[in-house]
Amino acid sequence: MRIVLPLFDRFTALDAVGPYDVLKLLPGAEVVFVAAGAGPVRNSAGSLALVADATLAEIDSCDVLVVPGGPGVDEHVEGGPLLDWIRRMHEGTRWTTSVCTGSLLLGAAGLLRGRTATTHWRRADVLTSFGATYTPQRVVGDGRLMTAAGVSAGLDMALTLAATLADRTTAEAIQLAIEYDPQPPFDAGSPAKASQEVRDRLAAGLR
Amino acid sequence: MRIVLPLFDRFTALDAVGPYDVLKLLPGAEVVFVAAGAGPVRNSAGSLALVADATLAEIDSCDVLVVPGGPGVDEHVEGGPLLDWIRRMHEGTRWTTSVCTGSLLLGAAGLLRGRTATTHWRRADVLTSFGATYTPQRVVGDGRLMTAAGVSAGLDMALTLAATLADRTTAEAIQLAIEYDPQPPFDAGSPAKASQEVRDRLAAGLR
Repeated sequence: MRIVLPLFDRFTALDAVGPYDVLKLLPGAEVVFVAAGAGPVRNSAGSLALVADATLAEIDSCDVLVVPGGPGVDEHVEGGPLLDWIRRMHEGTRWTTSVCTGSLLLGAAGLLRGRTATTHWRRADVLTSFGATYTPQRVVGDGRLMTAAGVSAGLDMALTLAATLADRTTAEAIQLAIEYDPQPPFDAGSPAKASQEVRDRLAAGLR
Repeated sequence: MRIVLPLFDRFTALDAVGPYDVLKLLPGAEVVFVAAGAGPVRNSAGSLALVADATLAEIDSCDVLVVPGGPGVDEHVEGGPLLDWIRRMHEGTRWTTSVCTGSLLLGAAGLLRGRTATTHWRRADVLTSFGATYTPQRVVGDGRLMTAAGVSAGLDMALTLAATLADRTTAEAIQLAIEYDPQPPFDAGSPAKASQEVRDRLAAGLR
């Protein structure tokens, strides 16, 4: 079972690594990070680089596609090789998935027209501009498309996927392996739960 | 504020990237991945490599040390340059922290003697062999040491740290930025919650 995660400059690392560290534990999983060119790909902060071990041109099919998001998404939504590749890959996938603003790439590739989907809560308007119906849920499945909300939601999506790709016992064993028994010290992880002060702090750029 | 994460062969990616994507959002944060040699460092599956941008020798102090775990930990607990470096760094940190079996490195470096600490639930016996009292909580603070349980617990630890390094409003704004409103599809994230069948599946190696 081949699972492929495309990287691009200014991606968000946790969008990719959360699902990666779940899905890599599936029996028979072969996971590949790909990018336009092989080698290190930097995130938006510039202080993290993940290595792409193959080029987009080298990978022409997979069972599961996991598209991460990040500020760099905006450089690709107008069209180009990454969208073309996503469209081609989607033809043969069992699951085409995204985390955070990765769904904007699926949308820009034309895969979400008339579909329900989610994205980072701050970019819902962009998602709908691609013809999708934004659903403010953490994980949204529609056919063989599955989208997750912002950044950390990729963990919940990956466990959901794991149960469909293997079975529920395996998925729960992976949850136990990564000790995913979340206990956040605060309860501000969604716009509905965060205070106005917290939303203002984020809107001001966390400075 | 300098935050440093050491990498080593066969580390677990999410142990490092979870805290990274929280702490990098702190105002004034400068985050650096380091390793014995600069360049790509592979995880235990071999399909992921994170780039170390500096060598251990180049970094001699930091405000926050975050030590990830992973199968590769076992190659360092007997002693060597990584433990020596951790000991030296700890002298000047505001916080010395670990995720998952990263606490075994802190323990092997002698930093947890007589301390309460946590680790991945499967390795609690090793932690106690270093003179620590294993506390089966998700995040354990003792003085300026903070340890997190397995893999995904680094997210909860990093948010706790963020509140002490900045303030609670900032920490909550980071939680909102990464949309950390966890909704795992199952409730098997700790040995107490997982069924015997699930524990057996994991013990059999997820094959």
